[in-house]
Amino acid sequence: MSLIDHIHRCQSADMSKFLPWRIGDGRAGWVRRDVAERLAGYPTVFSVGADDVRLKPHLATYDHRSAAVGDVTRDLYEAGLFTGWRGEWFPVLQHFGEAPLLRLERSAVPVFGVHGYGVHMNGFVRDGGRIKLWVGKRAANRPIEPGKLDHLVAGGISLGLGVRECLVKECEEEASIPKSLAQAARPVGALRYRMEHQGWLRNDTLFVYDLEMPADFVPRNADGEIESFELMELDAVRGILARGQDFKFNVALVVIDFLIRHGHIAPDESDYSDLALGLWRD
Amino acid sequence: MSLIDHIHRCQSADMSKFLPWRIGDGRAGWVRRDVAERLAGYPTVFSVGADDVRLKPHLATYDHRSAAVGDVTRDLYEAGLFTGWRGEWFPVLQHFGEAPLLRLERSAVPVFGVHGYGVHMNGFVRDGGRIKLWVGKRAANRPIEPGKLDHLVAGGISLGLGVRECLVKECEEEASIPKSLAQAARPVGALRYRMEHQGWLRNDTLFVYDLEMPADFVPRNADGEIESFELMELDAVRGILARGQDFKFNVALVVIDFLIRHGHIAPDESDYSDLALGLWRD
Repeated sequence: MSLIDHIHRCQSADMSKFLPWRIGDGRAGWVRRDVAERLAGYPTVFSVGADDVRLKPHLATYDHRSAAVGDVTRDLYEAGLFTGWRGEWFPVLQHFGEAPLLRLERSAVPVFGVHGYGVHMNGFVRDGGRIKLWVGKRAANRPIEPGKLDHLVAGGISLGLGVRECLVKECEEEASIPKSLAQAARPVGALRYRMEHQGWLRNDTLFVYDLEMPADFVPRNADGEIESFELMELDAVRGILARGQDFKFNVALVVIDFLIRHGHIAPDESDYSDLALGLWRD
Repeated sequence: MSLIDHIHRCQSADMSKFLPWRIGDGRAGWVRRDVAERLAGYPTVFSVGADDVRLKPHLATYDHRSAAVGDVTRDLYEAGLFTGWRGEWFPVLQHFGEAPLLRLERSAVPVFGVHGYGVHMNGFVRDGGRIKLWVGKRAANRPIEPGKLDHLVAGGISLGLGVRECLVKECEEEASIPKSLAQAARPVGALRYRMEHQGWLRNDTLFVYDLEMPADFVPRNADGEIESFELMELDAVRGILARGQDFKFNVALVVIDFLIRHGHIAPDESDYSDLALGLWRD
């Protein structure tokens, strides 16, 4: 498996399968055509046309929209359309940083193809001139990608959390990194992908951070989401990426970005500009 | 002027003004419609249709293609279609790293909308926790963007040069950076833009490097292309970007990427993901 295959895997969504979900003049998400037919069964909430699904304009406030879509979401979940209810709110945003249009149960975010936002942090250690990367192994009971390799810290940004606030919280929960150390994490960019995963649309932007860790810090998972951590040489990380899909799909992207930014992949290698440019395709 | 405006400025090409220039099954560049009409006057070299311009298939080798297109290029230059003949060869590439289809006079690269490749190096100095960036001022006699602010080192990759080889050469010529120091430059990514500039199509990929410089190193220009250098605080650099177009158009992009990668722009700022993602749009 070549590095570029990881990027193609995450840029694979066939958007012809989805109809835009509009609220007013803006787009709130993307809905699979068969799901649109289900939504037509809730005519007080959605109007479903040939080209799009629209939220009824009488649902004009955050509270009204959240309540009406929330009822439909619960109904579809109980009817078995999707699984893995999280009991956690995500915002539905037109543009990041603006007030949310409504709130949505986290597990329904890919069902409505809503643009999700997450933080991913590369925790690394310098050993002389060399860099080693902390890699976690996801617990076997995770709803998404159990047992796959993960970052030291990563998570979705739920309703009401700022980006750095989310990062500091995840640092504590996922790796027992104290706030004083987490605050030193440096934002280094963002990346974006739209992929079909388990039949749904993952439509995500990840905010990426690097944190140089003290050599003697040993991460310890506090929320049961990560089974173990290992400090890996970058050559070993690259070897795993070349071998197959051991890394969680989106973690592979962030790791490739890390390898590029830290000069571990060089411009004279084949696919370099496709790798460097492909990570940010919209 | 907002930071995002610099990106929009470089992603501004209206491609409906251009016809693809094809060689065999591949695309060698993009030609303005009025230039396509001029090329129709060379029927042994080009066939010009409603949808594209094709190189005649009998021009089947690198040498034949280079000679035939070279004659046309010289003719168009002497007829006054474009100015600034450089006497320097650039490769016409289907994919970076592959054998070139032909070679082309550098000043004709935007005339044929050929994909150009360059290196841009951020030379920076650490001062405690702060970073300062070396900024050059382009000489008043440069054919492109005279007097604008520039990187410590930047240049187009001419025929036969590898990326790092080009960087080391430019380090010596533009800033008198010895090879031993230049070798420490770290590749950190690539960015891409297509813009109309002086009526032509700049269709470029830049390979970006960072080089941490010793605090006592003073750059000295050796080829007359840079008038002076200044070591600037990142806040000052950002202030100049906010003020207007003092930086050369593509240098602004690379500097914004530098500010993002070094955490000087944070995800909670408006436009962050548009900035971070827009730099790599194809």
